[in-house]
Amino acid sequence: MKIRKADDVPAEPVRAEGAKDVEIRLLIHEAEGAPNFYMRQFTVAPGGQTPEHTHAWEHEVYVLAGEGTAVTPDGERPVAVGDCVYVAPGDNHQFRNTGAAEMKFLCLVPKT
Amino acid sequence: MKIRKADDVPAEPVRAEGAKDVEIRLLIHEAEGAPNFYMRQFTVAPGGQTPEHTHAWEHEVYVLAGEGTAVTPDGERPVAVGDCVYVAPGDNHQFRNTGAAEMKFLCLVPKT
Repeated sequence: MKIRKADDVPAEPVRAEGAKDVEIRLLIHEAEGAPNFYMRQFTVAPGGQTPEHTHAWEHEVYVLAGEGTAVTPDGERPVAVGDCVYVAPGDNHQFRNTGAAEMKFLCLVPKT
Repeated sequence: MKIRKADDVPAEPVRAEGAKDVEIRLLIHEAEGAPNFYMRQFTVAPGGQTPEHTHAWEHEVYVLAGEGTAVTPDGERPVAVGDCVYVAPGDNHQFRNTGAAEMKFLCLVPKT
């Protein structure tokens, strides 16, 4: 078993095209030997955003702090702390921080 | 895409032997068609606990609120809001709420 404060996990900037002011922390990943899926934490500064993109795997998201906008296949939707978001395989998506404080969320992906 | 407030997802009591004052919410599960892994949220009342048990699949845990004790293969360890916990396959484990407020955590499991 491995217990860590998420904030103690080193953060790396997200350099993907379309990303702005986003950092990622690999909370439970290859280094832990996770066999099936990975837990990552994203921190988006006010005005920042994740890339808008589509891919063949799902996301399971939980918003830990802040508020923003989710781009969904059905248009833009508000998201805020305490929301869970299922992004199905093939769903176009993006998360934008429209608030005044940091937006933090977990985003879990299958090991591929 | 499906966006919900986690607190709006119906809660069910955990009836497993050894569980005490624990509720579960299936945030992203079969109903969402999640293909690889499931997101559940547990709420443990003060003095409550999850069952102490061991199984062949992993848990990926994030503590959303409160504080408590984790039973681990290396003994008892404190856990608190903001901690991430990787429970490897075969790790004996239990979560106990030792605080005065609700303890809430996400616990993700592979689809089996």
